[in-house]
Order: sequence, then C-alpha cells, then structure tokens
Amino acid sequence: MTLDLPALRAFFHRAPFMVDLGVEPLSVGEGRVATGMPITPRLMQHTGQVHAGVMASLADHSMGSAAQGLAPAGRWAITAELKTSQLRPARGTRLVCEAVVIKPGRTLSFTEAEVYAESDGQRTLVMKASATMALVPASD
Amino acid sequence: MTLDLPALRAFFHRAPFMVDLGVEPLSVGEGRVATGMPITPRLMQHTGQVHAGVMASLADHSMGSAAQGLAPAGRWAITAELKTSQLRPARGTRLVCEAVVIKPGRTLSFTEAEVYAESDGQRTLVMKASATMALVPASD
Amino acid sequence: MTLDLPALRAFFHRAPFMVDLGVEPLSVGEGRVATGMPITPRLMQHTGQVHAGVMASLADHSMGSAAQGLAPAGRWAITAELKTSQLRPARGTRLVCEAVVIKPGRTLSFTEAEVYAESDGQRTLVMKASATMALVPASD
Amino acid sequence: MTLDLPALRAFFHRAPFMVDLGVEPLSVGEGRVATGMPITPRLMQHTGQVHAGVMASLADHSMGSAAQGLAPAGRWAITAELKTSQLRPARGTRLVCEAVVIKPGRTLSFTEAEVYAESDGQRTLVMKASATMALVPASD
Repeated sequence: MTLDLPALRAFFHRAPFMVDLGVEPLSVGEGRVATGMPITPRLMQHTGQVHAGVMASLADHSMGSAAQGLAPAGRWAITAELKTSQLRPARGTRLVCEAVVIKPGRTLSFTEAEVYAESDGQRTLVMKASATMALVPASD
Repeated sequence: MTLDLPALRAFFHRAPFMVDLGVEPLSVGEGRVATGMPITPRLMQHTGQVHAGVMASLADHSMGSAAQGLAPAGRWAITAELKTSQLRPARGTRLVCEAVVIKPGRTLSFTEAEVYAESDGQRTLVMKASATMALVPASD
Repeated sequence: MTLDLPALRAFFHRAPFMVDLGVEPLSVGEGRVATGMPITPRLMQHTGQVHAGVMASLADHSMGSAAQGLAPAGRWAITAELKTSQLRPARGTRLVCEAVVIKPGRTLSFTEAEVYAESDGQRTLVMKASATMALVPASD
Repeated sequence: MTLDLPALRAFFHRAPFMVDLGVEPLSVGEGRVATGMPITPRLMQHTGQVHAGVMASLADHSMGSAAQGLAPAGRWAITAELKTSQLRPARGTRLVCEAVVIKPGRTLSFTEAEVYAESDGQRTLVMKASATMALVPASD
C-alpha cells in the first residue's frame, strides 16, 4: 500500500476523531508523515495549555499512518503501545507532528514522533512519542 | 488539597477538552478516581472502534486527578510521561476509567489506570496505562 | 508449550545472563511466573541501592517466560518494548519478581511485573514494569 | 557539576554494576555521553543474542550520567522511568551507547539513548530508549 498525499488525506478523513480534531496531513515520504491541526479553545487543559491527550492523539495517528505506508498489502497498522513525554507546555495557534518509522517489519513496526507548537511563526518542541505498531490482517 | 466528588467534578469542568469529550468523575477515594464518558460517533477510529487517543486522554486526566488529590498544597500534578497499552478494540456505549496513585510523593507521583468499554452492561478491559506525574508549584 | 517448574528452571538456565545474575524461578501458573535472585555487592548502583538495570533484567525475563508459557507451539516470546517505573530504592538481601500475562495473543502478548526487595522478611515494592512481547517463529 | 571524561570515568567506576558489565565512557559533551562495553558470553540471552536487560542497563546508566552532567549542584539524577524498544537482535563484539538530554530541568530531565552492536567494524542500531530522570537532593 503506497500512500501519496491525496491517499493519506483520505486515510485521515476516514477516521472521525481526526476529522473532529481538524488534523490534516502536510507531507508524506518513505516512512515519514507530517501532520498539522489548529489549536482551538475546546482542546485546552485547565492550565491554559493544549491537553496532553490531544497531542497524544495527533502523534498516535501520525505514527500509525507512517507505519501504514510501509505495511505489507492487506495489513492494518494498529497501535499496540504508545509512550509520550511532555517536554514543555503547548501554546500557540497550531500543532505540527513529524512521525517516522524507525524500524519497519512484517508484523511489528517501530515508530517515533515529535510534536511542535507553533506561535507567531516560532516552533517549540512540546512532546516526543514512541509507539509499537502491530500489522494485523485487515480482516481482523 | 482534598478532592471530594463535587470538587473533582469542578476540576474536570475547568478543563475544556474533558468537557468536550464528556468526561465525568464517577467516584473518588484516597488516591483513586473513577471516570466515565459516552462513546459517540465522532470519537471513532477508521476501523470502527474508539480512537486510542480518546482513551489515552481519558486515562491521562483521570490519573492526573488522582495524583492531584494527594499532591501537597500549592502544587499541580502535570503529566511528565504516559504509556498506554491497547489490549483490545473498544466498542460499546460508554468508556469507564479507574485510576490509582501507586506511589505518591512530594515532587513525583506514579499512577496507573485501566480503561473499560461497556456494552449491554458488559465491561471489557481495553487499555492499561501508567504515568509519571510531576508535582510543580502552581505558579509555574 | 507448557512450562512446569522444572521446565521453567531449564528455560532460565539456558540464558547465560540469568545464570550470571542468579535468577531462579520460584513458582509458575497459568500466565504467571514468580522469580527470585540474591542481592550481591556487584549489582549495586553508586548510591548503594540495586542498579535499576538489574531489576529491569529480572522483570524482562520473568515477563518473557510468562508469555512463553502461553505462546503457540513453535513460537518464541521476544521483548518488543519494556517500560519500568522505579518507585523506591531497592535494598536488602533478595529481589522477587511476579510477572503476569495480562492479554495473551497469537503474535503479541501483553505482560506486567512487580519487583520487590526483601529485607529481614519484609517486602517492599520497588519497581513496576510492562512489556509487549512479540511471538515470533522459533526459526527466526 | 561539570563532568569531563576523567570525572565521568570515576562516576561509572563508583557503580559496581557498571564495573561488573565492563562499561566505560567513551566521550562526553554538553548533555551528551557515549559509552561502550564488551559483549561476553555471560551476557547472552538463550537465543544467542545479548540479553535486553544488559542493553537496558547500559542505556539507563548512560542517560543518567548525561542528565547528571546538567543537573543543578547538590542533586543526583535518578531514573524515574525507562522505556526501551528492541529493534533488532544484538550480536557482535561490543555495545556502544549514545545518550543525550533532550530537555534538562531543575527537578526533572528528559533523556534518550541509542544502543548499537558492533561487529567487524559495522554498527547496527539495536535499541532505542527514553527515560525521565528525577533530580533529587543528594542527601535523599
């Protein structure tokens, strides 16, 4: 399954929660996906920063789509486990995520992601994430 | 800071993303918090199950609030890192989360959570999570 | 592959690093393994407590053996990822680990472990761990 | 606390388990530490590759020493949590670890590491690790 940018957009649009958050793919490469979403008031934590769950959701789906692009035909990339480290508070107008497959495989794929908060054209690294993706038969 | 159920409700209502997801505290105890939220179509993954990011968000905030209940006065519990393991697809009408502080401290608190999907009165364990909470001065 | 206690002992004795650390299985059940090892001076951290790497090694192998006991015939349980949380300093005369499979599968198995330090007959919980085990063909 | 290479060597030599494994620092920089150790038969897994616990121990201590180099005076870097992903089997004559502080702080420091296996002058990336380091008063 090769994912070009239009195919990747369709992939994100099939996931209602990604549509709900406003996540859009920005670019795609061999084992690499970049995504972005607007920061809106309903996504906040009580402390006035973006809720960590929002960033985890963005990282999770971006890593999954990067793994999907390298998955054998007929297999879905499903998150087995995800770890996120929150380095700094996320504030600004937009989140951007860069996800990469660090080790593709037939049944498991290892991925990583960085999430940045953009404000006035400045990028701040706010989260790092790693995930193990299971590549399961699409019929499962 | 002691959190009884009304105080815990107020704590969740101050976080816009928890309000957006419809998360409500169900019960509270010494280092323990249970929460619930409805499963609605906009929260889905492309595979027809609840998006892992939704469950991670629920687990994160529930663990944070459990840590907050045992935090020294004047300190906020902030997630430093979070790991989630997705054991099974989440389908049904409601998610329930049980979060617990496994080791409270002055500057760090270790927490764990289980997320269940409820369908027709049946509970299925769908995610396990662990998180390290930093207890930072509320002025930070 | 069913592992009774003698088979489990043989399994640990085939791993030179487990022999080097002095790890021995203590008991075995359906998806459960308990192990123990002596605390000796060479296993210490510069702070006078057991090195976290020792406890991670104990937890990793104990969880792997628990997963092995439920693995389909002809498959090895291999650690894909491991997370450990160090709750307290480990001091005393012996470490004991209790590992359990929380979700067995055909190609992935989710496991957890607790590590205790024993001193004068008292047990202290010092580490919690979780791991995703890949069940790979034994020929790989 | 500034750690030059001789100070870093002394730091590793004070930890008996690092001496036992034969770990030596190779280089040090601002928030960066590289370490190495020989692969010997006693460190093996039953499958003929280096035990994951050995690599986790190497990564853990290397990340801790990188965090120590940036820690405020009078504070020890202690691992709060560690995650490792095992990308490939580790075989060869030597392990090399490159550890880096990705976000230093006053009470928490976020670190990452890569572990390589060297064989006939070839390096293979075998593990990636991330850890949250607590910076605790040295008297604790």
